[in-house]
Amino acid sequence: MREVTVPPDLYARIQQFHATQMHALDGGEFDAYAATFTEDGEFRHTPGRAPARTRAGIAEELRAFHRERFADDPVQRRHWFNMLRVEPRSDGEIHATFYVLVVATRPGVRQPEIAPSCVVHDVLVDDPEDGLLLRSRWVEHDWQPEPVGAVSGTAGSGVSR
Amino acid sequence: MREVTVPPDLYARIQQFHATQMHALDGGEFDAYAATFTEDGEFRHTPGRAPARTRAGIAEELRAFHRERFADDPVQRRHWFNMLRVEPRSDGEIHATFYVLVVATRPGVRQPEIAPSCVVHDVLVDDPEDGLLLRSRWVEHDWQPEPVGAVSGTAGSGVSR
Amino acid sequence: MREVTVPPDLYARIQQFHATQMHALDGGEFDAYAATFTEDGEFRHTPGRAPARTRAGIAEELRAFHRERFADDPVQRRHWFNMLRVEPRSDGEIHATFYVLVVATRPGVRQPEIAPSCVVHDVLVDDPEDGLLLRSRWVEHDWQPEPVGAVSGTAGSGVSR
Repeated sequence: MREVTVPPDLYARIQQFHATQMHALDGGEFDAYAATFTEDGEFRHTPGRAPARTRAGIAEELRAFHRERFADDPVQRRHWFNMLRVEPRSDGEIHATFYVLVVATRPGVRQPEIAPSCVVHDVLVDDPEDGLLLRSRWVEHDWQPEPVGAVSGTAGSGVSR
Repeated sequence: MREVTVPPDLYARIQQFHATQMHALDGGEFDAYAATFTEDGEFRHTPGRAPARTRAGIAEELRAFHRERFADDPVQRRHWFNMLRVEPRSDGEIHATFYVLVVATRPGVRQPEIAPSCVVHDVLVDDPEDGLLLRSRWVEHDWQPEPVGAVSGTAGSGVSR
Repeated sequence: MREVTVPPDLYARIQQFHATQMHALDGGEFDAYAATFTEDGEFRHTPGRAPARTRAGIAEELRAFHRERFADDPVQRRHWFNMLRVEPRSDGEIHATFYVLVVATRPGVRQPEIAPSCVVHDVLVDDPEDGLLLRSRWVEHDWQPEPVGAVSGTAGSGVSR
């Protein structure tokens, strides 16, 4: 297999971008997280939920999601990313695919819950002003495979992957 | 301790190489995985199993292993690598040592199994044509320590490590 | 959010530094671990334990800690770092914040224990002679939140974070 090359500077930049972004999310800074998207960015994080769009829409979706799921739960969540594959495209988009685990700790309980396992597909742009920004992020959950075509908007084939 | 330096470009290249390679393996593309080895590459992934050799031999070993272990098991496995230490040698070989966990998810079950914990020893070459290729990979399993000398071919000392 | 940039070379250097350092620690080489600190380095790894200071003090603290906790326990521990955010300061200090999980395997037991989840704050310097060295490391444990001010030496506010 011929090596899929990537500018090494870009690789480290994306790792740092992801770390900064997820420290913000795990710290409950939903507006800071939303600000890592382009103005018209799109975020699909959970199967069955509609995609969130625009920075304001993404921040609102995060607030709603956390109210529903973690309102009375003093959980500290940590998003772990790994096995990052970066693919710059000729049109300037940067596609990145990686694995994710969510580590959730409750006060007084040493053993965290580590679930679910996901695969994330990022589309990034390198903005002259702001640097890296997310145009879109799509999270696939390994335990809830989605039908093919569910994302692209084309008709699903009915075949699970 | 004096810092063990490594060309930063090489570090990111190996991370990208590992990600591309393991996305292929976790997607069931055994021939693509085998193609990340040199023609005469060697792969030892499980204590007690003979090493696989050559690209064809490695792909065949993976097919056999997955038939035996996962034939009727709709598991999605994800290999996580971490704590990568890279050491370029004067003869052109690149030695890389890192930690591994295997994350295994079944459809409908949110909680993955995360086991076993391993240490992997890669020997890479930087081919002028194909870029990075694996000359050999040896996987040590933390729960099944192997006797010293089991790998190098020299007589074991009887001392477990 | 404007991208928080970092020299990509530095990012890979710190990843390699962390890997080399933690391979030493997980291999029981406490003096080698201590040697990754500056002569007057400080290490706070567990809430409720006094910080260790100087290389000799850090190595001694590690020996004491391992005697107390793991004397008769044939455990293989592996420290996993992730989501590294690097921030070079104008005074030459390099601040790094990242997530940690500890993976602990016992012989004959395939399933490791993975706990606790931590956040680590490193302060590094780039020594002309030795390269990267730790001036200080502070480990926060997610399940045991510390009162604000516990570290900086200022009076705690009584508010948990």
